[in-house]
Amino acid sequence: MKIITTVKEMQTEAEKLRRRGKIIGLVPTMGYLHEGHLSLIRIARKKADVVVISIFVNPTQFGPNEDLDKYPRDIKRDEKLASETGVDIIFYPSNEEMYPERYLTYVTVEKITETLCGTSRPGHFRGVTTICAKLFNIVKPHFAVFGEKDYQQAAVIKQMLRDLNLDMKIITGTIVREADGLAISSRNAHLSPEERQDALVLNRSLKFAEEMIQNGEKRAEAIIKTVKKMIEEKKSTRVDYVSVVDPDTLASLEKIEDKALIALAVFVGDTRLIDNRIVKV
Amino acid sequence: MKIITTVKEMQTEAEKLRRRGKIIGLVPTMGYLHEGHLSLIRIARKKADVVVISIFVNPTQFGPNEDLDKYPRDIKRDEKLASETGVDIIFYPSNEEMYPERYLTYVTVEKITETLCGTSRPGHFRGVTTICAKLFNIVKPHFAVFGEKDYQQAAVIKQMLRDLNLDMKIITGTIVREADGLAISSRNAHLSPEERQDALVLNRSLKFAEEMIQNGEKRAEAIIKTVKKMIEEKKSTRVDYVSVVDPDTLASLEKIEDKALIALAVFVGDTRLIDNRIVKV
Repeated sequence: MKIITTVKEMQTEAEKLRRRGKIIGLVPTMGYLHEGHLSLIRIARKKADVVVISIFVNPTQFGPNEDLDKYPRDIKRDEKLASETGVDIIFYPSNEEMYPERYLTYVTVEKITETLCGTSRPGHFRGVTTICAKLFNIVKPHFAVFGEKDYQQAAVIKQMLRDLNLDMKIITGTIVREADGLAISSRNAHLSPEERQDALVLNRSLKFAEEMIQNGEKRAEAIIKTVKKMIEEKKSTRVDYVSVVDPDTLASLEKIEDKALIALAVFVGDTRLIDNRIVKV
Repeated sequence: MKIITTVKEMQTEAEKLRRRGKIIGLVPTMGYLHEGHLSLIRIARKKADVVVISIFVNPTQFGPNEDLDKYPRDIKRDEKLASETGVDIIFYPSNEEMYPERYLTYVTVEKITETLCGTSRPGHFRGVTTICAKLFNIVKPHFAVFGEKDYQQAAVIKQMLRDLNLDMKIITGTIVREADGLAISSRNAHLSPEERQDALVLNRSLKFAEEMIQNGEKRAEAIIKTVKKMIEEKKSTRVDYVSVVDPDTLASLEKIEDKALIALAVFVGDTRLIDNRIVKV
């Protein structure tokens, strides 16, 4: 496994691989790898000749009061896990390499970035689309793999690809959960034992919402109300949002006709967690 | 010479050429080719195995009150000129091909787009960077050639390349002028004989400014004042801006130390023309 830290070396390597007809698969990560990332790497491993993961805690997708500084990092452990899972190249650049002095360019996707996490994290998706555009130009992958836990992120990246005519595919991997149902996230490391227990309500309330819909409830408002109530009964939780949207356009739904995305973000203590579920009637 | 109208076909062709090790040079144009474009095509011809020009009057770089509808078009003539100048491929997409329904993504370069033409044409450079990002992803060139008449445009594109890590080069071609000094532009076609005569003041005033500087004038304000006065003496002219800026950062200069870009935009009748000159002390 190679570790590459400069844009120039990564581009030279990528160009060489492409010239040889190799299929490059990229899994962009912020490091502190967990089973969720590893599941995405395994997807890439099946489809690519060369699997690249990027490890970069991207400052432009964090707001001024968010958890950039305390975002967990452990590159040695990441290297070991990546190597064991069959990664060929880790692209691990510095902040200065990615955002040199006089950095001025941003990629923005309108509308679908203005709901869900976009509402409570202004500028977040501009940071995500910008860093992904950069990573795609650096690693030159034939496809990139994103997790469905960040459902909106994957949708926004797909829109960017289509609009900017990036000649590559996005593949998504399903949410990986702990045995008790909590969606795996690097941020789970911040939870106290009590918070960890309270956090189970995210997945449970989504499951309950699915049952409501399958039992005939079609009104988004009723579902949102129930999910919020379930979450707020826990001691350490505070709802950021609970939304029922169209899985393609991310526009709010009033009535659930055939399918819906139920997405939520919840502060558990100081830690903001997200989860979602696609429900088909 | 091939004419390609779809993104998919162009990308397939570009990928095939790159796999064979061919160097692709792109000259992006809005068509109605003139000697300025042809000079850029000749530069590309010298350095590339395959010369691609794009012809696309890009709606997103025109403001609501600008001349999108009356922008001159003549594809048959363009095909003939391109073929004679050694173009291998014309990429000639429709509006729907480039901006399909639910188009939502834009590339923005900050700061250096906020002076000169950016001030009088809000949104213009967002349109330029967005279409160029798209064209670069579609044609996959090793380099693209831009004219120095749109000095700011070339500077903005270079900044975008650097920031988004696009693995290609920008080459610029010097301004091509008519025998009497008028910078060649597709928009010159709109000038009446009297306006055509008045338009000579653009180049003449820039030349005069250069002489002032070479004769010891260092104050940008004095130069701007003189140039404006020369232009406003003509009957059909109205100054949009006259600026003296740093050629690298495009920041306004008060004093000219070693080199400066003098750039101007002038309405001659209803036609907005631009011109510029780099002056070294």
